[in-house]
Amino acid sequence: MDILIKNVLLNGKKTDVSIKDCVISEIGSGSKDDKVIDGSGKAVIPSFVNMHTHSAMTLFRGYADDMALIPWLEEKIWPLESKLDEKLVYKGSKLACLEMIKSGTTSFVDMYWHVKGTAKAVSEMGLRGYLSGAAIDLFDADKHEQQVEKCLQEIKSVRSFGSDKIVPVVGAHAIYTVSGDLLKSMKEIADKNNLMYHIHISETKGEVDECIKKNGVTPVKYLDNLGVLGENFIGAHGVWLDEEEIQLLGQRGGCVVHNPVSNMKLAVGSVLDYKGLISNSVNVCLGSDGCASNNNLDMFEEMKVAALLQKSHYNDPRRLTSREVFEMATVNGYKALGLKGGKIEEGFIADLCLVDLSEVMMIPNHNLVSNFVYSANGSVVECVICGGDVLMENRVVKDEDKIIEEAVGAAEEIVGDRS
Amino acid sequence: MDILIKNVLLNGKKTDVSIKDCVISEIGSGSKDDKVIDGSGKAVIPSFVNMHTHSAMTLFRGYADDMALIPWLEEKIWPLESKLDEKLVYKGSKLACLEMIKSGTTSFVDMYWHVKGTAKAVSEMGLRGYLSGAAIDLFDADKHEQQVEKCLQEIKSVRSFGSDKIVPVVGAHAIYTVSGDLLKSMKEIADKNNLMYHIHISETKGEVDECIKKNGVTPVKYLDNLGVLGENFIGAHGVWLDEEEIQLLGQRGGCVVHNPVSNMKLAVGSVLDYKGLISNSVNVCLGSDGCASNNNLDMFEEMKVAALLQKSHYNDPRRLTSREVFEMATVNGYKALGLKGGKIEEGFIADLCLVDLSEVMMIPNHNLVSNFVYSANGSVVECVICGGDVLMENRVVKDEDKIIEEAVGAAEEIVGDRS
Repeated sequence: MDILIKNVLLNGKKTDVSIKDCVISEIGSGSKDDKVIDGSGKAVIPSFVNMHTHSAMTLFRGYADDMALIPWLEEKIWPLESKLDEKLVYKGSKLACLEMIKSGTTSFVDMYWHVKGTAKAVSEMGLRGYLSGAAIDLFDADKHEQQVEKCLQEIKSVRSFGSDKIVPVVGAHAIYTVSGDLLKSMKEIADKNNLMYHIHISETKGEVDECIKKNGVTPVKYLDNLGVLGENFIGAHGVWLDEEEIQLLGQRGGCVVHNPVSNMKLAVGSVLDYKGLISNSVNVCLGSDGCASNNNLDMFEEMKVAALLQKSHYNDPRRLTSREVFEMATVNGYKALGLKGGKIEEGFIADLCLVDLSEVMMIPNHNLVSNFVYSANGSVVECVICGGDVLMENRVVKDEDKIIEEAVGAAEEIVGDRS
Repeated sequence: MDILIKNVLLNGKKTDVSIKDCVISEIGSGSKDDKVIDGSGKAVIPSFVNMHTHSAMTLFRGYADDMALIPWLEEKIWPLESKLDEKLVYKGSKLACLEMIKSGTTSFVDMYWHVKGTAKAVSEMGLRGYLSGAAIDLFDADKHEQQVEKCLQEIKSVRSFGSDKIVPVVGAHAIYTVSGDLLKSMKEIADKNNLMYHIHISETKGEVDECIKKNGVTPVKYLDNLGVLGENFIGAHGVWLDEEEIQLLGQRGGCVVHNPVSNMKLAVGSVLDYKGLISNSVNVCLGSDGCASNNNLDMFEEMKVAALLQKSHYNDPRRLTSREVFEMATVNGYKALGLKGGKIEEGFIADLCLVDLSEVMMIPNHNLVSNFVYSANGSVVECVICGGDVLMENRVVKDEDKIIEEAVGAAEEIVGDRS
């Protein structure tokens, strides 16, 4: 749909923004034959890219908190996950898509089970999903073939939606759950199919210590030895990287996804070395992680916590400025996904939000980006457009009540028969 | 006004809540002659107590971030503050009151200039303000008399509103800006007038080091030697307390107010020892600090960051549970203020919120308190009642547009002529 946004604030000035063929076609004027959206009293900004999440875990929101990692996983999360099927994942992912749209996110990178359920949710909600399963063989060579087959099937099923907004990704869970052989095979699949490669890396000290003990090298070095690093690499967490690993990531390309809320909530014991990463030219992006360890998908909050954590950990209030963290959540994510997005400029994809400037958290407007990062939350977003499709207008998303009702039913179904 | 809230969720069950004479008079039934509020699809919870803020600093929101503390104060904040007058403070405080109401806060403890402006704002907005100026003599004995006089005047002007919701507090800025003599005089005024005593304490290492150098003892010990500690003591920050200080605070009574967002944003270099404080029976409360160092007044966000910071700093995800931090933001604050509040029970004051359970962040509802702390933000609050007065219904606060317009004007007036 062609759209004309009238009288919207952009870089401090009122202007019009035209969208044609999914792209921002013109700034400053446009055709009144298009669908017109009144931008008065609103600012236009690029929408967010959530670079690491497990969207269907919305169903577990608040089910288990304040626990140590291992009992949390073993007693709470894994038993619930064993009950999931494609239909439940579909319902949980729809809830996640709804939440993302309502807080201004239009692209997300997901790693989870029953990926077809998530793909179906994305196809109905109209945002961009970069979707993978999670290969795991637990170092059992007998599982290799089956995991490779599963991955190929997942790629096929994501592609079957035939939309450039629904993109398969190759997902390997982590180095402590996937053998070197399978990590390599997954990389081959990714490269052959021109897909990204998504993995949890260096999230806990235990993972690093175990890797060194087992392989004689640190996790990133281990991945590099396997040939896994490269431009299509998406490494989630990366809080325990040493200097050599950071340099390697800079040399090989790809990105590291910071998940500050999850890292703090699960007490992973270290903090992302943002400055080290960017001074080695690593593309640093932002992600929410899943709702079991966050417990929301609001990228406004994630930006604020990212800035607070850098300042507080490095004891310097100048660390990670609002502008830097805003870019982490927008333009850096688009870059990682190979999309020309994250800026409101002619020729960029029309993935954007209108933000209500009359919300009390946005008053006064000394500095719009500061207000986004340090004051606002997702509720300031009033209109969301993704590739020219209007996903939310006046904070209304299509079928919201039904999505919520189905998600509540799904959550009850999973949890209901716990004993 | 007598109120009957029908069909509202309380402790997992649907019930009715009656309010008579500013107090929760009955749970389970009520008279239909009262004003009826439909609580269907909503939960009732105690409203929040923001135990440390500088409300008129909303006018500086986003004006200066990501700076080192001293240039931030000297180049940005202090020059702006020098331009303030009672009218500007009134407008900034009204904006703050609006923001607090919209995010479920009905009581706040404020320390700022031109306190009459804040008192007027509170009187018009209907929440509870515990208001002080900030005595400062910069160790100049000639200023003693004038500061004492100013404090007495402030008490009188706050009392002149004749409302039990507008309560004077005695405010001394900090031990590094106020002489021992003045700290003592302020304590005498507080005790004589049966008022609370509000001070910034142990916020930075510099403050502690300087105190030890100058007085031979740590800040809390220094205050104790002056006779300042006691049941009416409100100490804001307290991130650099040692064991002896924590024990002293426990013995003398009073409370410590945690301001995690501000502490992280300004990089104060340490973290509140929550566990140490509560195991010494210190009442730990929660505050947002001012909007220049936060930059909002949303106690939902403050609760989450408090929990995240304890878990991450102490490397233990079990630290500061959602239940504990919820109490920090509610019942502990009421206790500090000497109010029977913070619980939805018969006989407690009717300071409460209705929260919309159909908001996407509240879905599913495995654990309501977890959803409040880890998932929600202020936008889930739909109705706010303070002492039986309805301050917000259906998210509408009276005169909102006018308050915002006046605050925007005030902010422009202050910042406009910067060169």
